[in-house]
Amino acid sequence: MPTILGQNQYGKAENRVVRITRDGDTHHIKDLNVSVALSGDMDDVHYSGSNAAVLPTDTTKNTVYAFAKEHGIESAEQFGIHLARHFVTSQEPIKTARIRIEEYAWERIAASDDNSQFIGADEVKHSFVRKGQETRTTQITFDGEKWQVISGLKDLVVMNSTSSEFWGYVKDKYTTLKEAYDRILATEVSAKWRYNWTSDDVRMPNWEKSYEQTRKHMLQAFAETYSLSLQQTLYQMGSRIINGRSEVDEIRFSLPNKHHFLVDLEPFGLKNDNEVYFAADRPYGLIEATVLRDGTEPQIPVDMTNL
Amino acid sequence: MPTILGQNQYGKAENRVVRITRDGDTHHIKDLNVSVALSGDMDDVHYSGSNAAVLPTDTTKNTVYAFAKEHGIESAEQFGIHLARHFVTSQEPIKTARIRIEEYAWERIAASDDNSQFIGADEVKHSFVRKGQETRTTQITFDGEKWQVISGLKDLVVMNSTSSEFWGYVKDKYTTLKEAYDRILATEVSAKWRYNWTSDDVRMPNWEKSYEQTRKHMLQAFAETYSLSLQQTLYQMGSRIINGRSEVDEIRFSLPNKHHFLVDLEPFGLKNDNEVYFAADRPYGLIEATVLRDGTEPQIPVDMTNL
Amino acid sequence: MPTILGQNQYGKAENRVVRITRDGDTHHIKDLNVSVALSGDMDDVHYSGSNAAVLPTDTTKNTVYAFAKEHGIESAEQFGIHLARHFVTSQEPIKTARIRIEEYAWERIAASDDNSQFIGADEVKHSFVRKGQETRTTQITFDGEKWQVISGLKDLVVMNSTSSEFWGYVKDKYTTLKEAYDRILATEVSAKWRYNWTSDDVRMPNWEKSYEQTRKHMLQAFAETYSLSLQQTLYQMGSRIINGRSEVDEIRFSLPNKHHFLVDLEPFGLKNDNEVYFAADRPYGLIEATVLRDGTEPQIPVDMTNL
Amino acid sequence: MPTILGQNQYGKAENRVVRITRDGDTHHIKDLNVSVALSGDMDDVHYSGSNAAVLPTDTTKNTVYAFAKEHGIESAEQFGIHLARHFVTSQEPIKTARIRIEEYAWERIAASDDNSQFIGADEVKHSFVRKGQETRTTQITFDGEKWQVISGLKDLVVMNSTSSEFWGYVKDKYTTLKEAYDRILATEVSAKWRYNWTSDDVRMPNWEKSYEQTRKHMLQAFAETYSLSLQQTLYQMGSRIINGRSEVDEIRFSLPNKHHFLVDLEPFGLKNDNEVYFAADRPYGLIEATVLRDGTEPQIPVDMTNL
Repeated sequence: MPTILGQNQYGKAENRVVRITRDGDTHHIKDLNVSVALSGDMDDVHYSGSNAAVLPTDTTKNTVYAFAKEHGIESAEQFGIHLARHFVTSQEPIKTARIRIEEYAWERIAASDDNSQFIGADEVKHSFVRKGQETRTTQITFDGEKWQVISGLKDLVVMNSTSSEFWGYVKDKYTTLKEAYDRILATEVSAKWRYNWTSDDVRMPNWEKSYEQTRKHMLQAFAETYSLSLQQTLYQMGSRIINGRSEVDEIRFSLPNKHHFLVDLEPFGLKNDNEVYFAADRPYGLIEATVLRDGTEPQIPVDMTNL
Repeated sequence: MPTILGQNQYGKAENRVVRITRDGDTHHIKDLNVSVALSGDMDDVHYSGSNAAVLPTDTTKNTVYAFAKEHGIESAEQFGIHLARHFVTSQEPIKTARIRIEEYAWERIAASDDNSQFIGADEVKHSFVRKGQETRTTQITFDGEKWQVISGLKDLVVMNSTSSEFWGYVKDKYTTLKEAYDRILATEVSAKWRYNWTSDDVRMPNWEKSYEQTRKHMLQAFAETYSLSLQQTLYQMGSRIINGRSEVDEIRFSLPNKHHFLVDLEPFGLKNDNEVYFAADRPYGLIEATVLRDGTEPQIPVDMTNL
Repeated sequence: MPTILGQNQYGKAENRVVRITRDGDTHHIKDLNVSVALSGDMDDVHYSGSNAAVLPTDTTKNTVYAFAKEHGIESAEQFGIHLARHFVTSQEPIKTARIRIEEYAWERIAASDDNSQFIGADEVKHSFVRKGQETRTTQITFDGEKWQVISGLKDLVVMNSTSSEFWGYVKDKYTTLKEAYDRILATEVSAKWRYNWTSDDVRMPNWEKSYEQTRKHMLQAFAETYSLSLQQTLYQMGSRIINGRSEVDEIRFSLPNKHHFLVDLEPFGLKNDNEVYFAADRPYGLIEATVLRDGTEPQIPVDMTNL
Repeated sequence: MPTILGQNQYGKAENRVVRITRDGDTHHIKDLNVSVALSGDMDDVHYSGSNAAVLPTDTTKNTVYAFAKEHGIESAEQFGIHLARHFVTSQEPIKTARIRIEEYAWERIAASDDNSQFIGADEVKHSFVRKGQETRTTQITFDGEKWQVISGLKDLVVMNSTSSEFWGYVKDKYTTLKEAYDRILATEVSAKWRYNWTSDDVRMPNWEKSYEQTRKHMLQAFAETYSLSLQQTLYQMGSRIINGRSEVDEIRFSLPNKHHFLVDLEPFGLKNDNEVYFAADRPYGLIEATVLRDGTEPQIPVDMTNL
C-alpha cells in the first residue's frame, strides 16, 4: 500500500456544560465548552473501519457530564486533568488525551435597593449576567506520565489612546507609510501560556489565582509600556508575566494591530488633533511571538490563527 | 408602466468612529458604529439613474466624521440628533433621516501597585479594555418636525439558576414536555425602548443616565421575579421600566429562551440534583412582546429578528 | 396598572429539520431551518404567569418534526402552510401563526469514471454536497382566513466588473468623492417578495418554479442593466420580476454597495487600468427599496437589517 | 535578563485583493484574501522597540497590490510564490516569508434568452455571482532556498444519506450509544495537502488543475466509500488523493461529524423510517488525521482547529 496513516486523533468537540453548586442559598456557576481529543492505537479503524479499539465520541461526551457531577468543576484546568487521566488510564488503546476548554465568566446581578418589596433580599444569590469580556482557555495533555498545561485567553480588546509611536523603519520602493509620533495602539489579545507543572509528584499551581494574576500583568504591561512598536509591547507583556509568575515558563501572543486611522478633516476646514479616528476592519497588522524563561525549551505551537 | 417604486432609503452603513477627548492627561473614549438612512424625493435615481437629488453615501460618511469633531459625542443619542437634523435641514430632497448607532463600552485598566517604577502613575489615564458585555443601541428618526428616539441594548446574557417553573400548559397530541418545578431560566436580552421626547421645544432626557437606569431596572426585574414563564418575566422587566422611568413610554423585548437541559446521569448511577446542565444552541424558545404605558400608542416595529 | 401589554408572539425558533425521501435508490433531500411564532389570547401568561392558554414551544418543535413525516416537505412554502394552518385551527387561543423558514440547497456528487471498481455506479444517488450559495427564505402568515406568503433569498453575492458609473450627484461642503465613469458594482442581495395568493379558494403558485424564475430574473437584470446608480439597478431587478412573474405583487431589496476601491499604484510607478481593487468591509452604502405592481398596497416591512 | 524571545513573525493579514483581467470584452476575476508573515533578525524591535530592521506591515500590504498588477494572479499558489520570494530576497533581515491565501470562486451569470433587447448579448461577459461553496486556501513558505506549498480547502459540506454504519465499538460504564446500521454521515471538510515541489530547479505543478482534481477525488471518495466509521472514510479520501495525484505527498483532514439524529416520532404514533432528522449543532465528533505517501515525512502541523 503506497499510502500510510500519520498522526490522528478523535473525540467529541464543544460539549457545553454548565455546573451549578450551592452554598446554602448562594449559587455558584461554572460555564465551560469542553473538547476531547484522544489518540493511540487507532490504525484499524482507519484502514478497515473496525471500531474494536474505539471508545465512541458519544461516550466521551457522557464522561464530561458525569465527571461534572462526580468531581465538580473546581477550575477548568483541574477538570481537564480529571478527564485526561481517566481516558488514558481506563482505555488501553488510548495513549494520549488532550482536553481543550473554553470558560465563560459570569458576575452576579446586584439587588435593587428596595428589593425587599419584591421577593426577598437573598434572591439574587442565584442571578447572573455573563461578563462577556475575554474567553478563558486551557489545554491539558496527558500521555500517561507527563502533563502539559497550556492556559490562555482570547477576545480581550485593549487600547492606548496615546503613548505609542512608529518610526525609523525600513523604507523600500513600496513604502508609503508616514511616520507616527503619537498614535492609537489597539489590539485583541490572544495568549497561551505554558505551566512548568508536569508531574503528579509536584504540587499543582493554584489555577484560578494564576489566571487572575497573569491576566492582570498582561493588562498592566500593555497599559504601562510607552510603545515604539507593537512587538516591543508584546515582549513587555510576556516578560512581565515570566518575571512575575514562577509557575509560567512560556507565553505566546497573537496580537492583531487593530488600526485606528486619523481621519483627514482638512477638506472640511477642520483640524483633527488626535480626536477622530476610523476603526478599520481589514487588513490589520498581525504580530506574533513567544516569550520564554531563559533556559527552557519552547513547546507552544506557533500557529494561533489560520491567517 | 405596470410597476412603481415604494418606500426607499439609502445611506452609508457601519461607519466606525472612535472619538477621543482629553481632560488634561485623562482621556475619554466614545466608540460608535453609525449607520445613516435617508429618504425623500428619490424617484428619479430609481427610474432613470439620475443622481441629481442624491447626496452620495460617501458624503454621509464624511459628515459622520466631521460632526464627531465639530459637535463631539456627548452621547450616541445626541450625536444622532445632530446628524439627522443636518441631513433633513440642509438637503431639500431629503425629507426623513434615520440614524442608527451601536455603542461599545470601554473601562479603564487599573494601574499596577508598583506602577511608579515603570512610567508614572498617571499613564493608565489613557489605557482601556473593552467591556464586552451588552452592545448599546439607538435609532434617531427626524422628519423635519418631530423626533423619534428608540434606544436599546442587545447581547446581554442573563441566567437565574433557580426560582423558575413551567407547568400547567396546554397538552395536545404532539406534547411530550415534562412539567418543571425548578429550572434554569436564561436568555440573551434584546430590548428597544421609545422615549416620549419628540419636540425641540421640550428638554431632552439625560440619555446617559436614562440608559444606565433602564438597564439596571431590567436586570433587577429579571433577577427578582419568581418566574412561572419567560413571558411573565418579560412583562415584569418592561413594567418596572415603564413605572420607574417617566421618559420611556414603550419597550419591546426579544428574549430567546436559552435552554439548559438537566443531563440524565442515571445510566451512570448518578443523581443529578439540579447540578449539571447541557447548554443547547438550537432550537430555542423565542418570546417577544411590547410593554406600553397605558394610554400610549405602540410605535416600535415588532420584528427584532429574522427568525 | 399604568402599564399594558402590546403585540406579543412566541414559539420555537430554528428547528433544524432534514427530510430524506427515496425514489428507489435515489434519495432526495430537503434541509430547512424552521421558526414558529404564535400569537393570540396570551394576556394571562404575561400578567400572572398562568400557562393555561400556552401550547409549549417544545410542542411546536415536535409538530415540525411530526409534520415532516406526515406531510413531507414538497416545498418550504407548502410545509409552512401546513404548519400555520394546524396551529391556528387546532388551538382556540391562537389567532395567528407565522412560520419562517430558511432552506439550504444541496447538489449531487458526480460519480467517478471508474466508479464501478468501487461500489457500484448507482451509489452516489445518496451523496450530496451543500451548494453554499444563497439561502432561500419564506414567511407564511395565517390568521384563520387569509394567507400571506413572503418568500425571498439572502447571501447572494454578485458583481459587474464594468458597465457601472456614478456621477452628477449633489455636492455639499462634506463631499470629497470623485465621479466614476467605469467602476465595479457589487452587492450581496437580500430580497423578499410577496405572492398575491391569499385564499384557499384559489390555486397556489408552483413555489419551486416561481423561486427559480424569480431568482433568474433578479440575476439577469443585475447583469444586463448598464448602471448609473445602484438604485437604478435595484429598480430594474424588481421591475423585471413584477413584469415577468404575475404571482408576485411586491418585492423589497436590501442591497449593500460592496465597495471595491481602485488601488492607487502611482507611488510605485504603476498604472492601475481598472485591474487591481481593494474589497472593503465597512462602511458600505446601503440601498433599500420596495418595487410594487401598480395598484397594489405594500405589505412587506421596510426593515430588513438592523443597521 | 531572565526572559528571552522565541519564534516570532509579523506582517499584514487579510489583504483583500480583487484582480480583473480582460480578454477582449470577456473579463476574468481572481478574488483573494492574502496574509503575509515575515520572520528573521527581529530581536531589536522586541527588546528595544527599534524598527531599523522592520519593513512596515503597511508596505507588505502595498506590495500585495503592486504585485497583483506587476505579476497578475495566475493562481493563488503562483501569486504567493512571487510575494514570498520578493520579501526574502529583497530584505536582508527577513529570512523566511509565509504567505497564506484564501480564494473565493465566482461563476458567470447566464444571459437571458431575450438579452438582445437589453444591452447586447456579450454584456454578461463581465457579470459574476459568487459560487459560495468551499473556500480554497494555500500557504507558501520560503526560506531563501526551499519552498513548501500546502494548499487546501475548507467549508465544504457533504452528506451521504445512507451507506454508513457505526457499531462494534468499545463500551465502558459511560457508554449509552446504540449501534447504528444505517445512518446519515455528514461532515464539513477542512483539508490541507502538501506538494512535493520544493525547488526552483524543478517544474511546478499546474496549481489550478491539481486543485480541481484533488477536490474531485476527495468528493468521490466520500461518496463512494461504504462507511463503517468516519475515520475509514477519511483514510479513503486521503488515500485516493495520494494514489491519484503524484504531486501531493501528504494530506491532513479535520472532519467534524455533523450529527443528524433520527427523531423519535413514536410518541405521535408515527414510524420514522430514516426520513426525518434533527441536524445538531454542538457537540460534534471531531476526526482528524494525516494520510501520507509511504516513505515521506509529515510536515503539516496537526492543529487545524482550536477546539
